[in-house]
Amino acid sequence: MKWSKNVYTFLGCEAEYDESPIALFGAPVDSTTSMRPGTRFASSAMRSDMVGLETYSPLQERDLCDYKIFDAGDLELPFGDSAAALAMIEERADRILSDGKLPVMLGGEHLVTLGAVRAAVRHHPDLCIVHFDAHADLRDELMGVHLSHATVMRRCWELTGDGRIFQFGIRSGDREEFRWAKGHVTTQLHKIDGVAAVLPQLAGKPVYLTIDLDVLDPGFFPGTGTPEAGGVSFYELVEAIRTLMPLRIVGCDLVELSPPLDPSGVSTAMACKVLRELLLALCGREA
Amino acid sequence: MKWSKNVYTFLGCEAEYDESPIALFGAPVDSTTSMRPGTRFASSAMRSDMVGLETYSPLQERDLCDYKIFDAGDLELPFGDSAAALAMIEERADRILSDGKLPVMLGGEHLVTLGAVRAAVRHHPDLCIVHFDAHADLRDELMGVHLSHATVMRRCWELTGDGRIFQFGIRSGDREEFRWAKGHVTTQLHKIDGVAAVLPQLAGKPVYLTIDLDVLDPGFFPGTGTPEAGGVSFYELVEAIRTLMPLRIVGCDLVELSPPLDPSGVSTAMACKVLRELLLALCGREA
Amino acid sequence: MKWSKNVYTFLGCEAEYDESPIALFGAPVDSTTSMRPGTRFASSAMRSDMVGLETYSPLQERDLCDYKIFDAGDLELPFGDSAAALAMIEERADRILSDGKLPVMLGGEHLVTLGAVRAAVRHHPDLCIVHFDAHADLRDELMGVHLSHATVMRRCWELTGDGRIFQFGIRSGDREEFRWAKGHVTTQLHKIDGVAAVLPQLAGKPVYLTIDLDVLDPGFFPGTGTPEAGGVSFYELVEAIRTLMPLRIVGCDLVELSPPLDPSGVSTAMACKVLRELLLALCGREA
Amino acid sequence: MKWSKNVYTFLGCEAEYDESPIALFGAPVDSTTSMRPGTRFASSAMRSDMVGLETYSPLQERDLCDYKIFDAGDLELPFGDSAAALAMIEERADRILSDGKLPVMLGGEHLVTLGAVRAAVRHHPDLCIVHFDAHADLRDELMGVHLSHATVMRRCWELTGDGRIFQFGIRSGDREEFRWAKGHVTTQLHKIDGVAAVLPQLAGKPVYLTIDLDVLDPGFFPGTGTPEAGGVSFYELVEAIRTLMPLRIVGCDLVELSPPLDPSGVSTAMACKVLRELLLALCGREA
Amino acid sequence: MKWSKNVYTFLGCEAEYDESPIALFGAPVDSTTSMRPGTRFASSAMRSDMVGLETYSPLQERDLCDYKIFDAGDLELPFGDSAAALAMIEERADRILSDGKLPVMLGGEHLVTLGAVRAAVRHHPDLCIVHFDAHADLRDELMGVHLSHATVMRRCWELTGDGRIFQFGIRSGDREEFRWAKGHVTTQLHKIDGVAAVLPQLAGKPVYLTIDLDVLDPGFFPGTGTPEAGGVSFYELVEAIRTLMPLRIVGCDLVELSPPLDPSGVSTAMACKVLRELLLALCGREA
Amino acid sequence: MKWSKNVYTFLGCEAEYDESPIALFGAPVDSTTSMRPGTRFASSAMRSDMVGLETYSPLQERDLCDYKIFDAGDLELPFGDSAAALAMIEERADRILSDGKLPVMLGGEHLVTLGAVRAAVRHHPDLCIVHFDAHADLRDELMGVHLSHATVMRRCWELTGDGRIFQFGIRSGDREEFRWAKGHVTTQLHKIDGVAAVLPQLAGKPVYLTIDLDVLDPGFFPGTGTPEAGGVSFYELVEAIRTLMPLRIVGCDLVELSPPLDPSGVSTAMACKVLRELLLALCGREA
Repeated sequence: MKWSKNVYTFLGCEAEYDESPIALFGAPVDSTTSMRPGTRFASSAMRSDMVGLETYSPLQERDLCDYKIFDAGDLELPFGDSAAALAMIEERADRILSDGKLPVMLGGEHLVTLGAVRAAVRHHPDLCIVHFDAHADLRDELMGVHLSHATVMRRCWELTGDGRIFQFGIRSGDREEFRWAKGHVTTQLHKIDGVAAVLPQLAGKPVYLTIDLDVLDPGFFPGTGTPEAGGVSFYELVEAIRTLMPLRIVGCDLVELSPPLDPSGVSTAMACKVLRELLLALCGREA
Repeated sequence: MKWSKNVYTFLGCEAEYDESPIALFGAPVDSTTSMRPGTRFASSAMRSDMVGLETYSPLQERDLCDYKIFDAGDLELPFGDSAAALAMIEERADRILSDGKLPVMLGGEHLVTLGAVRAAVRHHPDLCIVHFDAHADLRDELMGVHLSHATVMRRCWELTGDGRIFQFGIRSGDREEFRWAKGHVTTQLHKIDGVAAVLPQLAGKPVYLTIDLDVLDPGFFPGTGTPEAGGVSFYELVEAIRTLMPLRIVGCDLVELSPPLDPSGVSTAMACKVLRELLLALCGREA
Repeated sequence: MKWSKNVYTFLGCEAEYDESPIALFGAPVDSTTSMRPGTRFASSAMRSDMVGLETYSPLQERDLCDYKIFDAGDLELPFGDSAAALAMIEERADRILSDGKLPVMLGGEHLVTLGAVRAAVRHHPDLCIVHFDAHADLRDELMGVHLSHATVMRRCWELTGDGRIFQFGIRSGDREEFRWAKGHVTTQLHKIDGVAAVLPQLAGKPVYLTIDLDVLDPGFFPGTGTPEAGGVSFYELVEAIRTLMPLRIVGCDLVELSPPLDPSGVSTAMACKVLRELLLALCGREA
Repeated sequence: MKWSKNVYTFLGCEAEYDESPIALFGAPVDSTTSMRPGTRFASSAMRSDMVGLETYSPLQERDLCDYKIFDAGDLELPFGDSAAALAMIEERADRILSDGKLPVMLGGEHLVTLGAVRAAVRHHPDLCIVHFDAHADLRDELMGVHLSHATVMRRCWELTGDGRIFQFGIRSGDREEFRWAKGHVTTQLHKIDGVAAVLPQLAGKPVYLTIDLDVLDPGFFPGTGTPEAGGVSFYELVEAIRTLMPLRIVGCDLVELSPPLDPSGVSTAMACKVLRELLLALCGREA
Repeated sequence: MKWSKNVYTFLGCEAEYDESPIALFGAPVDSTTSMRPGTRFASSAMRSDMVGLETYSPLQERDLCDYKIFDAGDLELPFGDSAAALAMIEERADRILSDGKLPVMLGGEHLVTLGAVRAAVRHHPDLCIVHFDAHADLRDELMGVHLSHATVMRRCWELTGDGRIFQFGIRSGDREEFRWAKGHVTTQLHKIDGVAAVLPQLAGKPVYLTIDLDVLDPGFFPGTGTPEAGGVSFYELVEAIRTLMPLRIVGCDLVELSPPLDPSGVSTAMACKVLRELLLALCGREA
Repeated sequence: MKWSKNVYTFLGCEAEYDESPIALFGAPVDSTTSMRPGTRFASSAMRSDMVGLETYSPLQERDLCDYKIFDAGDLELPFGDSAAALAMIEERADRILSDGKLPVMLGGEHLVTLGAVRAAVRHHPDLCIVHFDAHADLRDELMGVHLSHATVMRRCWELTGDGRIFQFGIRSGDREEFRWAKGHVTTQLHKIDGVAAVLPQLAGKPVYLTIDLDVLDPGFFPGTGTPEAGGVSFYELVEAIRTLMPLRIVGCDLVELSPPLDPSGVSTAMACKVLRELLLALCGREA
């Protein structure tokens, strides 16, 4: 008799590490969330709820079963010590990058991106970042805290420098953030279809893709801490992701799903489907 | 004094059986639901929550009060014996068809459609099926079970044969289902507006219309067991329904509302409104 | 040490009464709600949840911090005595109007509009009303009750007379309401973009703007008592609001948010954002 | 074929009016609820959820199937007009009393008791009231409103006079209520076991029993608008009810269940079980 | 770097199969649940939520870390085919028993017990059953279905014969069940402290212990499909479990937790703690 | 006209600072919560929901209206920087103590106690702590974090030294915590009635009282992050609080209410009532 082994991996991500060009891991932490916490539950909820999703995408006509993806599970991160948590994330991403693989991280709050970007910048000093989000996340500090979900892109900018961060879907920020953004980062307000226009600027460069799922409209994705009316649709997001595939993507993340805020489960289902499409797009690219 | 009689019928469906060309009934069962059960509560929730809905549709400029519709209430179906439940549904639909009336069934899970289709095929051996759904439901079995929500259209196909099932709005299935579909059924992916194009093929034939409400986008209809991002809107669904009205509709159902999954009540309200528009479209047709 | 003072005002509305051209207040009552009550919690929920919202609007490129708005807090209204509650609302609106300021009221159920309109009509006998809603609210009575959320626009019409009420987004009502509406009020069904077309009729006249938030699609705004599929989007609503700004707006309200019906918080967040855009549009107008 | 008839009656209460010594009816109104409304849904929720309950009580060794009880369904009461709603309740109770039957009313908020007591006092001018509740409900007015859940026992006292009201389980009230209570009504604080001690005073007199279910501890019965820690248990409540059975009970009610406040359904299940035990105790008495 | 391996085992149950005298497994099925389904989610919810629980019990002064327990994970059971699911459960229990180990099964609905009892009876033909439950579960059939949560103890009785089943805490059943029980099984109503009294009858015999968690009061354990007021407390249940430990326990289960029915998570936490105490009691016995 | 001023103070706590011997404040932070966050919402939820509670206690026959208590509102604490948050709490408590007043703090997670205790120890170097809790909170670190809800009493012990901390109601901890506790702190397991026995040891000494509300049974208080079955009742907790009143209480707190985890609102209502009884006990003491 073969024992079921209590192993929970994301949909079809059952390959071994060594054979996989993509390595998934979870970063379940939300200590700096200022409104409604809950993103710490995202990666485990996604592994549980993906049972409702097929491995096959009729949109891309590809099947996760045809590709090798490793799911490394969730990091065990401390609560209340952001610096320590970021160090653990950085170490994990660094290891994956060192092995020539592509890390795909599931948040957690958006601050986790900083850990992965630190590792990516070390491996790729000319790193560019494509950022899908409702919020600019460009504050210098929030209530005196510098390591925060609200400052994460500012911290990333300190690593990449001007002209390397491309934001899409942004529809919230304080006036100062938008002022500062000019000259430092490229921002498309409200929409996300400007991705095609920046491809030339990104061609050949190493690109980290960070997707704050609240770029989606709260009507389609209510399970997030700071919902902002007026977002994009599932098809618009997947279209934007697929548009990026000619680029040299070196790392990705999907953040800010907060399962407890959406008792209907629709948001977790959406996150799973976006992840499937992202993975299939990445896999197709490699072919 | 006139006693209130504890009688709960769907909105405006208060005619007697003999005088009604349409007979509504509920089939509240969800034993084979593999993810999140709850559709067993759909028909009773619809009867309760319809108090927020008017009998008049400004869209169709018709009023349910002007037509005769009988609400036969819910079947008392056993849990854990799908064959027995299907037999009871088949008997109910058969009786209504035998009396020259049109059965409109409220699920329950999608498997209930099989019972009604069995009766319809007996009365109309050349039956065609129009199928609105997010999922293809064309598996041959699910974990060894042949009577399942996931196999229901395959079981129906066994009754109708090739070329008789027309699917719209499909955006989920395993690769094998899509492969199999070719040559057996007609499938429109993602969209539902292909209905007009198949009217010629269906003209004059008896048509059973099965509406899995998860064809709607989960943003508008979160209360369903396996939400699939990227669905259609209320107006698109009603437009598709109305487009079918020139056909010879002999039976209908509305399935997969799961009220407990949507505490806001928006999904039940949507189901009620779709049912109202469906009934008014059917009634208008008869005029 | 400066004590925090337990003062909860809406986002950026921290000016004193005397210096503010706009005065906000809450009317938290829902005694006549016939389906699912809960709007009594709207104004306090909006003051709590606005912490997730910025004072700056990238859409209008304006910031609430640049304007003077007074938040007078919530009226303490009795439950079970609509006449008394309306009198208190009327007194409050009258006071604000007498001081040459613009009242912006947060409901509560839609009946509260009647109190504010009574005051506005006294100050502006030629008052016109622009009404965004899913429901016509033109019944003469509901179960014998004349002061009801379902009759509020009929009561308002008794004050303004024919040709003074302009409804948009309406998609529900009984047949009698739609019949009566002809010749008495102007109604745009389903859509809201007809606002521009009526500007000439309203030019120069005092206009009261009442926004029943259920004009929005329930997919984007599930937290309301009687959700009606097929509504407008956030951008469509804000566009309509901004289109009205050349007019002489003398009073506004935002009603029918019911926070307990939407555990995700998305509806309250939407209401806060609509209020921010409304306030910024009004402030910009004054400039 | 026998059509299911959409008739929802409470557990085993399927007799006709004429043959039944007990007549059940619902009074689903909560217009004066000052905190969290929802009791309007109680009677219909109880009819839906009683399917989980047996007709047989191992505690009393009696079965509802052995008795004749008529369920008259819910009154259709207006919202926003307490006087009109009370008149309809009074008329219903009066009719039942005139026919020599015992009315058992399901609230709704506690104010509904006043309608039934008005009818009972007309039939039994020397009426006494036994009152189980967490709250004294003896205020003269609440925010200027005299017909309120918070004043209902004061209004009842105006009908019965001093020494006729016996309260048990009370653990909340303002100081003035407790002061006033002395000399006017009999009150047992916190506990409910004092029922036995007052039997001699009530012997032979017509007794109306009103049970505000919040007399139960919120741990066992969370689904109520104003939960008060420190209440009684199910067995204590049933014991108190059974202790009263030697008395001449002429009317009863069960109020203040608010199903939406308890998503677990435990409170509705509790209310159903208390109602079953109450009905069986009343029926046993008649034997 | 050591990869986290996505392995979810119950609290401290991390031993290998061969070294463990106890083997845990989940049987996540609820197809015959007649009221509110959801127990299918119990075993996975318990593995997720146990993170809030310590391995050490101050009550028993024992620590799960000191013992070897194997968690075999969840069976993948089909929905809609009870016979097939029971066969899979029986096979799993049989394997564990054949290896001389003690199976501890986590439901699922109560029907799963039948699978394990079938295996246990094969190994121990003189099997006795100790049954903690609110419901007698002694029906012969429910709506024509013989394999049902409501008939499970009757089916077990068919395997064990008279005088071998000892029920405690029972407070619900139809009259016929209680009549039948006399002469066939031993039943303690309402309470559970009669366990000590039956120890002599059970001494030396193989005993299967089945714990339907709804034996607990719904105040402490609301997350179950058919809550019955008047149950026992945590300490009473643990005391009863510990009282049984001198016996020859050959199998155990814990059933009827339904996590979706209790959004507070208290019921899952209770189930985890009962399981910890059960495992520690069993382990202590072996010492 | 007097404007309502949007001031939310706790029930009856409307005195000015200077005239009040007691000063209330909120510390809404939960950054180190390792399971389910949400206590950040406790103090504001308590201020909102207290409207259902009377100022008068029939238990103590005292009324909050007769006493002077100042509610200083909530501190604005950063998320993700525990050291900074604790410093702000300490400063606030220090100021209140310096003015000769008694601070009563509303958490927030239990870590906030450390800030207040630091201030109290500075003012009263011989401080003793009475600690009501389900959890020992005596770990030295949790996943490398030393400032954590799980270590708070260990940190406090570092300030007070051996023999100064008295724990009651404890029913959870790892084995190491219980071992360490011996010789360092006094612990009563499971129960709370040992308070009377330690009064002699505490007589005349300055005492800080910290109440983790999860000392209550989760049946009565489900709204907390780590519920532990087997807790105390409301009356037992209030009795223990009142027993302490002869002592020299110099500071108090009430922590770990997590309103989002209990949608019924019963837990917040319980917390409000415990706070009322605590305040009335403290006020009575002063008389």
